Amino acid sequence: MALTNLTIDPDRLLARLKQLGEIGRDGEGRLIRLAASDADRLGRDRFVAWAKASGLAVKVDRIGNIFALWSEPENAQEAPLMLGSHIDTVIDAGIYDGCYGVLAGLEVVATLKEAGLTPKRPVVVAAFTNEEGVRFSPDMLGSLCFAGGITPEEALAARGTDGKILGEELARIGYAGSDEVARPAAYIELHIEQGPVLEREGVAIGAVENLQGISWQRIILDGVANHAGTTPMTMRHDAGAAAASVITFLQARARASKTGTVATVGTIAFEPNAINVIPARAVFTVDLRDPDEASLKAHEKALADHLAKLEGITVTVERLARFEPVVFDQDLVAEIEMAAKARGHSVRRMTSGAGHDAQMISRITPAAMIFVPSIGGISHNPKELTPDADLVAGANVLLDVVRTLAFR
Amino acid sequence: MALTNLTIDPDRLLARLKQLGEIGRDGEGRLIRLAASDADRLGRDRFVAWAKASGLAVKVDRIGNIFALWSEPENAQEAPLMLGSHIDTVIDAGIYDGCYGVLAGLEVVATLKEAGLTPKRPVVVAAFTNEEGVRFSPDMLGSLCFAGGITPEEALAARGTDGKILGEELARIGYAGSDEVARPAAYIELHIEQGPVLEREGVAIGAVENLQGISWQRIILDGVANHAGTTPMTMRHDAGAAAASVITFLQARARASKTGTVATVGTIAFEPNAINVIPARAVFTVDLRDPDEASLKAHEKALADHLAKLEGITVTVERLARFEPVVFDQDLVAEIEMAAKARGHSVRRMTSGAGHDAQMISRITPAAMIFVPSIGGISHNPKELTPDADLVAGANVLLDVVRTLAFR
Repeated sequence: MALTNLTIDPDRLLARLKQLGEIGRDGEGRLIRLAASDADRLGRDRFVAWAKASGLAVKVDRIGNIFALWSEPENAQEAPLMLGSHIDTVIDAGIYDGCYGVLAGLEVVATLKEAGLTPKRPVVVAAFTNEEGVRFSPDMLGSLCFAGGITPEEALAARGTDGKILGEELARIGYAGSDEVARPAAYIELHIEQGPVLEREGVAIGAVENLQGISWQRIILDGVANHAGTTPMTMRHDAGAAAASVITFLQARARASKTGTVATVGTIAFEPNAINVIPARAVFTVDLRDPDEASLKAHEKALADHLAKLEGITVTVERLARFEPVVFDQDLVAEIEMAAKARGHSVRRMTSGAGHDAQMISRITPAAMIFVPSIGGISHNPKELTPDADLVAGANVLLDVVRTLAFR
Repeated sequence: MALTNLTIDPDRLLARLKQLGEIGRDGEGRLIRLAASDADRLGRDRFVAWAKASGLAVKVDRIGNIFALWSEPENAQEAPLMLGSHIDTVIDAGIYDGCYGVLAGLEVVATLKEAGLTPKRPVVVAAFTNEEGVRFSPDMLGSLCFAGGITPEEALAARGTDGKILGEELARIGYAGSDEVARPAAYIELHIEQGPVLEREGVAIGAVENLQGISWQRIILDGVANHAGTTPMTMRHDAGAAAASVITFLQARARASKTGTVATVGTIAFEPNAINVIPARAVFTVDLRDPDEASLKAHEKALADHLAKLEGITVTVERLARFEPVVFDQDLVAEIEMAAKARGHSVRRMTSGAGHDAQMISRITPAAMIFVPSIGGISHNPKELTPDADLVAGANVLLDVVRTLAFR
């Protein structure tokens, strides 16, 4: 059976992406489908309806993860191959992030099923709860829970930005389940890149071999407010200038990195924030990411050393998040590369800069990801866009990878 | 007549400073006496009452500047010696800024008058309108108008931060006058330093020989927002990092300056200001001050050159304020130095980093300033403090300078 004699139904996949993208629009037309909200319920209901229309069994676990299961009597005892991603969104989202991986998974299963094929193991398409982390913390909560990184009790007790409890919200929208799904034999997540690399390089498919470690810190520098005109430079304790030195220091280090480090200071505030007053306080965040844990640690150490050397400034550091880099399964990455090439697509190995459910699932089973280009690298934004041809290409690569993994 | 055989009445001066400082307290105890407000009216009324109690004539000009005039028949034809400052305050002010110069001027006149002396020229104590510039722009408006730098019509049309018109507000509080005061023969302003130099050096009196030029700019840097995790360092247009480079650049230049340049970035904002989004926009202000105009221009040029070199960043610069440095009258500065030494006080020549009414009056007559120490350099703050002994010392130096200038 040649790998290229089947293709997914492009029209069905693209239409479903658009349909799901219309669910959860607010009065201004913004797409807002936060985890366990009424809009999320409507999106979940639609996914469940599509899964059932393809004859799949729908299971919901305690944290509200939905699993659309294609299982036949002859393979039901095997560990399933899992595909998936998430369908919750950020505020004012695009329509592709997460949804593409879930709906393409469903499309792949439907294509195989409609072709009359029976794989050697079940295939299950997962839609994980609260990947975005906008309403509840931490992000990737559903997949973290599925992977055993947090107990269902802890996860269900998460309090949202609106004060609501996740467990109660899941019950309210009808997605507080009790089903259990077997540990998968492997996990493949198809996703838009959310970065500019594939588009800039004109490459169709990314075979994601690892995922950056993430270090988030909030840094508070306290100096002394003083008159901007009357305080000589040598008598200043300028918290703003100190913050600028930290940013400049981090930029230079990241640019010189050999491991692909990225450093971002995305937020900043000065106090008292007056044109003629030396800042008494500067508060800013540092987002450091690196696919190499030793390198990430070295950057964190260098930052700490730089902070310790700031004269006349009191430094407070709050750690907001820390994830070690994830290395995906190299055999799966090779399968993705081969499948892309067999379809005639250009392909490159790459690092994921964003966090994904795959990073959690990789704790319990071999996992990898397939990326398709994001125009301008734009994501978490209504301008998020992947050309239809790239969406179809990615889904067909996923189809072929599933044919390899689930049928052998 | 020896210079030291008269002294001001310390108790009267200090008591009046405290009394004036109680006028304009809000419900939280904050001192807020904005120009042409109800609180300002009460402060002005008190000053006028004290002036009249000393037998001085009170004049109010079109922009509301109050002049307490000590004129005798035998000197009425001479150009007056002018002392003064302002009694409007910032929000949550200390009690010394401006008020000290006005009340010490009154104290000096009262002391001389009570001693039965008659100077060779009138002495007039000015309280200029809207020096702080908190409610109406520009700051130093009353003295600027008195010096002919702005017409009364223009000045009266100034619209406050509360939307009110200065002319209407002055009429409302009863300080829209029509008096004219002759161009003074000289102007001396006694003021707290508002900076840390005198206190740090243990010097009692500053003989202010010049006032820094001021350059205020608002700089807007536009880059491109992008995902902090997925955008390689080489593909970024990070407006925040560019802003940090500007701050660091300015700090290094000012610290290396031989002319006493000070550089302050007191305000900053990033957009969208999210931890995991590369800043698309950074807006910040630059406050550059220098006693040397050529040096100030060189810093402005270097800043412009640095901005022009920012790659992938669109730069917008708004000029908010620009004043050339002011050089005070060297003979007056020498008189102040001599008077301080004759009193046994340590004295140093120095530069004023803040703007003062003296800088405006110096446009039309020889002017200079006397500084006394500010504890910690703190000003525009309820913690603003000058020890009583220093306040008395400064007033006595002013007394002696007036005896020299008005009696010869």
